[in-house]
Amino acid sequence: MTWLDLPADHPYGIHNLPYGVFSTDGTEPRVGVRVGDDVLDVAACAERAGMESAAVWRAGSLNPFLAEGRQAWTAARAWLTEQLTTEAHRDCVEPNLVPVSQVRLHLPVEVADYVDFYASEHHATNVGRIFRPDSEPLTPNWKHLPIGYHGRSGTVVVSGTEVVRPSGQRKAPTDPAPSFGPSVRLDIEAELGFVVGGATRLGEPVALAEADEHLFGVVLLNDWSARDLQAWEYVPLGPFLGKSFATSISPWVVTTDALRAARVPLPGQDPEPLPYLRGGLSDDGAGTAYGLDVAVEVDWNGTVVSRPQFRDMYWSPAQMLAHMTVNGATLRDGDLFGSGTISGPEKGTRGCFLELSWSGTEPVSLDDGSQRTFLEDGDTVVLRATAPGPDGAVVGFGECVGTVRPAR
Amino acid sequence: MTWLDLPADHPYGIHNLPYGVFSTDGTEPRVGVRVGDDVLDVAACAERAGMESAAVWRAGSLNPFLAEGRQAWTAARAWLTEQLTTEAHRDCVEPNLVPVSQVRLHLPVEVADYVDFYASEHHATNVGRIFRPDSEPLTPNWKHLPIGYHGRSGTVVVSGTEVVRPSGQRKAPTDPAPSFGPSVRLDIEAELGFVVGGATRLGEPVALAEADEHLFGVVLLNDWSARDLQAWEYVPLGPFLGKSFATSISPWVVTTDALRAARVPLPGQDPEPLPYLRGGLSDDGAGTAYGLDVAVEVDWNGTVVSRPQFRDMYWSPAQMLAHMTVNGATLRDGDLFGSGTISGPEKGTRGCFLELSWSGTEPVSLDDGSQRTFLEDGDTVVLRATAPGPDGAVVGFGECVGTVRPAR
Repeated sequence: MTWLDLPADHPYGIHNLPYGVFSTDGTEPRVGVRVGDDVLDVAACAERAGMESAAVWRAGSLNPFLAEGRQAWTAARAWLTEQLTTEAHRDCVEPNLVPVSQVRLHLPVEVADYVDFYASEHHATNVGRIFRPDSEPLTPNWKHLPIGYHGRSGTVVVSGTEVVRPSGQRKAPTDPAPSFGPSVRLDIEAELGFVVGGATRLGEPVALAEADEHLFGVVLLNDWSARDLQAWEYVPLGPFLGKSFATSISPWVVTTDALRAARVPLPGQDPEPLPYLRGGLSDDGAGTAYGLDVAVEVDWNGTVVSRPQFRDMYWSPAQMLAHMTVNGATLRDGDLFGSGTISGPEKGTRGCFLELSWSGTEPVSLDDGSQRTFLEDGDTVVLRATAPGPDGAVVGFGECVGTVRPAR
Repeated sequence: MTWLDLPADHPYGIHNLPYGVFSTDGTEPRVGVRVGDDVLDVAACAERAGMESAAVWRAGSLNPFLAEGRQAWTAARAWLTEQLTTEAHRDCVEPNLVPVSQVRLHLPVEVADYVDFYASEHHATNVGRIFRPDSEPLTPNWKHLPIGYHGRSGTVVVSGTEVVRPSGQRKAPTDPAPSFGPSVRLDIEAELGFVVGGATRLGEPVALAEADEHLFGVVLLNDWSARDLQAWEYVPLGPFLGKSFATSISPWVVTTDALRAARVPLPGQDPEPLPYLRGGLSDDGAGTAYGLDVAVEVDWNGTVVSRPQFRDMYWSPAQMLAHMTVNGATLRDGDLFGSGTISGPEKGTRGCFLELSWSGTEPVSLDDGSQRTFLEDGDTVVLRATAPGPDGAVVGFGECVGTVRPAR
């Protein structure tokens, strides 16, 4: 369907068109769209086409585009598709394609508020068993609302950024007093992150049926976690320094438009949630509490140790967004929320090492013959994901990579 | 000491010089400094004086000034003092003074990350007794680290902004299931907020002794809280929708330089904290874990119902900042952290209505003959504060005001 020489099964075919921010040597970061193994310099293309909107694409983040809202996102996608599929536009496009190997990818969004949810029943159950062995694993509120908390937006970093092992206080239950030092239980959390646009006004909740108007796109998200710091600090006000040292996201924001074929019903919610969180999957899947069929893989030093499935999540992204604003909290352009660790019922689908190693008691074997419980200095973790696209196509998410450096 | 006609006991004398952002009819918001009952248009004054730095003062927030760091803050204060005390500069200053009654005050800072601490032992003990009556009121970690969590920076609003009563889920322990509706336990928290500048790099903690380099100034902060929403949601990941609907701050940022005479030793810490949080009050009070002698008053519909003293706080602002970054988390220009509710040992010094009404069981009497437990629609809360300045002067903070509007 396109003059571009792209195989039909390419994860960055024209059915995908994810947005990012890139630069080449000596140029300013600006918006790019991934097409096959190239990045389209959207501003240059738009200028050549005489578009008035080129300034939005010259920005060093997607935020000005996010501010334009759903109608502009739809129009931009239609325009890009037209550019890439019509021979007449070839002169506009071809000179502005840059091989991805020649670009540097930046944080795609200037993150406004960052919220992290806890939407996997399997993950919450496992963590409850590990952290609170004497209580019911799920707290009484868990099936009534998507539990979440605010994280540190200033330490959201782009894939490839090295992660310095954090130091802090920790105290095992058997220790007489807390001690200070580098975390010895450094972990990951494999998540999807949702990028929000179309800012709202204070005091005006976003209804579930309107959530799609604000859900621009999806990234892979690694919520690096220092479990020893977290366990000591998190009662009563929640995780803080155990999380705030770094959160990595993948550089390509896959639009929710590109994920329409990946919409699936949720596994089922019992008890039925309160009305503001209630919604089935309508025929066109719009504005409802749909799940997403995204297959994730967790690669630890070259060994795929887990394959979490996002379709196993209990709460939907739209439910998380509706809940987050039901008290009248505003959305800002560039808000980001994470799903929480994606874990399924089987061991091979657990999305963090706390669960995979069952709090360090069941080491994980890597292909190089070594064994791991938590992260060692020099370890590299790569998250990857794909989702079904239209007509059998595959939607690629790219990678979210991080390497652990020793504590300073 | 100045050609300005200011009484020595004026809370906005030249010993204070707090920064804000103001506009007049038809003009863009820009930086102002409060002097007596006027606002100095700093950009206009600097331009008239031929300063190159005028662009910083034309900004619609203090963030560019915050980015310049401690040395620039000191230089600006010296320059402003010179302008205001030297007859020769009168021509520069006088035409650029605007009566405060003629200006509109804006949010002074574009808030990057917002963190809220929990640094009053009296408050934490009272809340523990109310929320967790079957446990020790202070959690085991409380005296080892300043407990804190991230809040929603997008809903930090300037004094005067109306607060819409939030709706959400709540479930009393005796209710069979949660219900949805407007909060019926809407509360305040009287706090100080600390404005941060001099951004740091990822992975590089700020030592206690360097905290003063980043502590630019102080505002009054009202952490509006829906106690019914909070009680149901906060286990295990902390407060979320019970807090995220609004946080009000006063429009004038009182600099830490203006509060040097207000430095006092902490009440005492036992057990001694770990070394990264350890520091006494040296003779010049620099870079150490000092407290601040700030007297706050909480005014409910015209009745002062409480007089919290910041000097009663257990943890110091510098300890909060050092703790917040010890894991390598960055500071950004415009970060804001709250102290947590300021409560003292006596009932008349409790900083929230949850404590003052002991969870609604002991109504508070107002001067108009009415009684209150939590906030009713139409109620107005005003926070005010003063601190000792040099040579018997008083440092004024201005007001942090909010009126409750009915749920939508």
